[in-house]
Parts: sequence; C-alpha cells; structure tokens
Amino acid sequence: MSQAVNKQIRLASRPTGWVAANNFSVTEEAIPKPADGQVLVRNIFMSVDPYMRGRMNDVKSYIPPFQVGAVLQAGVVSQVVESKYDGLKEGDLVTGMLGWENYSVTDGRLVRQVRSGPAPLSYHLGILGMPGMTAYVGLTKIAEAKKGDNVFVTAASGAVGSVVGQLARIHGCRVAGSAGSDEKVSLLKSDFGYNAGFNYKTSKSLTESVQEACPKGVDVLFENVGGDIFEAALWNMRDYGRVALCGMISNYNMEDPQPGPRGMMLIIGRRLTIRGFIVSDHPKWCDEYVRKAIGWLKEGRLTYRETIAEGIENAPQAFIDMLKGKNTGKQIVQLADID
Amino acid sequence: MSQAVNKQIRLASRPTGWVAANNFSVTEEAIPKPADGQVLVRNIFMSVDPYMRGRMNDVKSYIPPFQVGAVLQAGVVSQVVESKYDGLKEGDLVTGMLGWENYSVTDGRLVRQVRSGPAPLSYHLGILGMPGMTAYVGLTKIAEAKKGDNVFVTAASGAVGSVVGQLARIHGCRVAGSAGSDEKVSLLKSDFGYNAGFNYKTSKSLTESVQEACPKGVDVLFENVGGDIFEAALWNMRDYGRVALCGMISNYNMEDPQPGPRGMMLIIGRRLTIRGFIVSDHPKWCDEYVRKAIGWLKEGRLTYRETIAEGIENAPQAFIDMLKGKNTGKQIVQLADID
Repeated sequence: MSQAVNKQIRLASRPTGWVAANNFSVTEEAIPKPADGQVLVRNIFMSVDPYMRGRMNDVKSYIPPFQVGAVLQAGVVSQVVESKYDGLKEGDLVTGMLGWENYSVTDGRLVRQVRSGPAPLSYHLGILGMPGMTAYVGLTKIAEAKKGDNVFVTAASGAVGSVVGQLARIHGCRVAGSAGSDEKVSLLKSDFGYNAGFNYKTSKSLTESVQEACPKGVDVLFENVGGDIFEAALWNMRDYGRVALCGMISNYNMEDPQPGPRGMMLIIGRRLTIRGFIVSDHPKWCDEYVRKAIGWLKEGRLTYRETIAEGIENAPQAFIDMLKGKNTGKQIVQLADID
Repeated sequence: MSQAVNKQIRLASRPTGWVAANNFSVTEEAIPKPADGQVLVRNIFMSVDPYMRGRMNDVKSYIPPFQVGAVLQAGVVSQVVESKYDGLKEGDLVTGMLGWENYSVTDGRLVRQVRSGPAPLSYHLGILGMPGMTAYVGLTKIAEAKKGDNVFVTAASGAVGSVVGQLARIHGCRVAGSAGSDEKVSLLKSDFGYNAGFNYKTSKSLTESVQEACPKGVDVLFENVGGDIFEAALWNMRDYGRVALCGMISNYNMEDPQPGPRGMMLIIGRRLTIRGFIVSDHPKWCDEYVRKAIGWLKEGRLTYRETIAEGIENAPQAFIDMLKGKNTGKQIVQLADID
C-alpha cells in the first residue's frame, strides 16, 4: 500500500450535528523532506477516536480545535523512511500524534519508538499506547491500588476505563464503574473485568448508584469525568482513599471554570489524597507497563478488540461509522504495511 | 491551689453576640472516682480558644456544640491523682480534651502522656501540642515541604499558622500567608517568620494578592480555611505543587456542603496533590516534632508567647478577654501547681 504521493485528509468544513463525508477533503502532495532533527515516516496505522469530533468544533478546549483546510491529526504508528534525527534510523517503528496522511515529517523528539513483538503493532494506539499506560500509571502508581481495594472508575467503558477495569482485577481489586449507556454497562462486565456498573444517564441519584455499585465504599477512584459523578464518588470514599485525577471531560467544553465538588471537608475527615497526573511525565512506568501488558495479553488476562478499516481514503467513513457505534472495540485505519 | 472539691464551669445559657459572664455558672461537686480503665487527674493548665465560641451556638459543625448545663470542655495539661489504667500511674503528666474543672475522670486511652522538661508545661497546649504538631506534620510530612519551596498559608496568624511560618523558615522555605486584620498581618512578619502576607478582608482580588505575596507561585499550600482563598491559592500553584488540607473553617458553620474551588482542571494540568490529614493519625511524627521543637525553642529559632490567668473561677473572664483580643499569644488558665 506504499504511495508515490502523500494523500492527506483535511477538514473541509466544520460539521453541525453528525459528521458527514463532505466535511472532509482528500488532497495530494509531494512526499515531504525532513530537515535536521526531523524524520520522514510512512504512517502504518492511525486511530480514529470520539474526542476528534470535539476538535472539529471551533471551541476552546484542553486541546486546540482542528483548523478548516488543515490536515487532521491522529495518533499513528509509523515506520521511519528517512532520518535526520540522531535517535532514530530508517526502518524504526515509532508512535506519536501526526496527520491523517500517508507520510509525515516530524521532530524526532515528538515520537516514541516502539518495537514489533508478539502483540499486533496497532495495539500501540490503544491498550499498549497512551490509554493503556494512563490506566496503569493512574491505577497502580498515582492511586497506589493494591489487593483488596474497592476501585471505582468513571467513563469506565472508554479507552482508558476499559483497561483500568481489567488491570484492577489483575491486581486483586474489586472494581465498579459508570458509563453512558446500558450497552456500555453490559460491556463493562462482559469484556472489561468490572464487577458492577451503572448507567449514569438513567441514575436517579448518582451518590446512591455509586453506593450500590460499591457497597463497601471506594478506596480508589479513577476519575475521568469530573462534575456530578466526581462529587457522588467522593461522598462514597473510604478513609485513606486515593483519587487519581486523570480527566475532567465534563468540563472540557465549558467556557468558564466550573466549581469543584461539594464536600471538600470529606477530604480532611476521611484523609483522602487527590492527585492529578499526566502520563507522559512517567516514561519509566510506561515502559514497565508495556512489558507487563504484553505478558498479560499472551496469558489472556488482558483482552482487547479492534476494528480495522483499510486505506487513507476510508478514514473519514471509519470515523463516521465509529461515531455511530458500528465498530467493536478500538477503531483503527491501516494505511500501509510494514516494510 | 489544690481543692477539696471539684469546681466546674458550665454553660449557663447560649450567648447571642459577645459572650458575657452570665453565660457561665460555677458549680461544685465531690471529686469523682475512676472506674477500671480510667484515671482521675488534677487539671493544671487549660486552654481557652476562639473555636469554643462556635461550640456555644446550637449549630451543627465539625465538633458537636456545648450543651447548656454541662461542664465546658477544653484542652488541658493534668497530673494523674489516681490510676485504674495500666498505662499511667500517680504523678504522671498527661494532656487531652477534658473539662473546665479542677478534677476530671477520663478513659486512660483518651489522654497522651507528656514529660516535664526544659519547656514550660503549658506549651503542650500550644506550640508543643496539637497546633504545633499539626503545623509540623502538615508542612513537612503531608505536603513534603523542602528547602527552596514557596509556601503559602491561610489563617496564617492562627494557632497552627503561626507555627507553620516559623517551621517553613527553619526548613529553608520562603513563606507567605493571609490573615484577617492588618494587625495580624504585621505579626506574621514580626513574630511568625513570614516573608510576606496580606489581609484577605481588604484584598480586592484574592488571586492577585496571593500572586503578589508569592511572586514565583506556590509549591506548598497549607490550607486552613477553604472557600475563596483556597481557590485563589490553587490558581497560583506551581507544577507538582502539594496541598496539605488541614481545615476548612470557612465551611464549619454552613448548613449545607459548599461547592469546591473552581478550576479542578488545574489539579491535572499542574499535577497537584491535595491531601487531607488528621494529626492524631500520626503519633510517631508528633513525638518527632516535640523532640525537635524543644531544641528549636532552646535555640530561639522557634518563639512562642502566652498570657496566663489564674484559677478556674477566672476562666470565663480569660475567655471573654481572649475573644476581645486582650491576650498576647496563646491564652492559658492555670488551675493548680504540679505536685
């Protein structure tokens, strides 16, 4: 699937409501040249994710919006074609945030090398990539989850939450979570290792729902959402509980900072620790995770599903299908084969 | 000053506005007898503190209100007269939360033994007692303040805050704080080791006031207040900052839990750690502090002032005078001499 030109997908117009094919344009350019410190890579796998829909709006958020006319961005796994960066050579495999395109030029420091091994290379965009590392670092290092802990996870069926559930079970915890549909709640238990879960959209009292899902209370809260569900989980924390603050998606699209949870007094009375983190601060723990996760995948203790579309031209449709829920597991687009 | 009977001060009626002498009654009882596991103590020093005024109201708070007709409670330093508790013997010196009275009977587990030494015994109600221990544990253990850190303290002139400032300087930190009057702000710098401070009641923007007081930002926040000043301090936190959550006095008299600070997203982006604590969980660190603090007092690196009134009958007036600010430093009432 190598190309003599660089096919690229650009944002043609901002969607209103559902994204449609005409919000994208396909353009062709000459394959670019790397300058000093840069590498030229051929992109092999790219990830399409729900958060990208948000970036198509012209709204201030935790990452800047996509620009109309510009090449869209995505997480990719790529192979180095030409290197003017000391740390990488031709043939090396890397992962990073590059473009919806066949070839990218990037500062060598902005990609991370990965090795082909027993797990499919595309896994580095999901369970062996940022989402998996975030789950591991947050659960086991930031919140220090240990055997017997009661863990609660918000956005539990998401890219991160779906790994947190499985890792919690591997580490001997009991784990419950919240998700936004009955289908996702079923997945929590059938696929992601959860002991219990509930649909926060149909809950009459979030505090009571957390309590039912975690009858002994919560030792470790893995927080991806913020807002009301964070408050509800806080009220269920046990003494000496730990909160890994990973995301606040409920706040991302708010113009002004929202008030924090009611009941900050609980943090004192129950001796809680709340800790924010960014996974890229912890490269050693990320490496530690990838080694362990490859083993858990082999043993079948960690499971992962993906749907793979083929060819850059089909990336917009794969994205649209994913937003409509047609995929099972992580949606990937394969752009080329490894040399 | 030993007594043959047990003189006690009771709450005669709930004050409205300023406390007056007629809100108290003096009664006499026979000296009580200890049951198994209890000790009878003669109270030597008692502490009168601002928080007691709050307990005179019939308002739900973090500690229950005083009951009309009941003996008032206070922190005391006492000497064991008769022991039916294995861990203590006649003559031992103890500290705990007992009554405004000459003699008390208490479960032996509810008091902590202290030793007479180079520092006055009454210091165990202040700088060598809970307030000093809280300052030390919160600053050096919970928030892990280290040399070069920028520390910010709310309620900086209070029993705890006045020690935090001095300990921060001893540990090589730069320290600033907020207090509720210009007089208190002067004390921060003249007496309590602070580099900078401001009056939060006259600040036009708390966020800007914290910024002026801590131009490099805040590595360690020692939080006694909560509410708006907590929010203002959070917005000034530096990456990897730590918050020791010690108190939330701004919330104590609220009927309903108040929303937390705006900007919880900062906790992630700046990788903050917020940790609640209760000093009595950490007896080893408390002992470590008392040993160190006695040394610092000897060397003059830690200073402490107190005003001592004499006799249980004068406790109500000492309390009233303290509330009106007639004392310098900690207000103590001496009830007896050590045997």
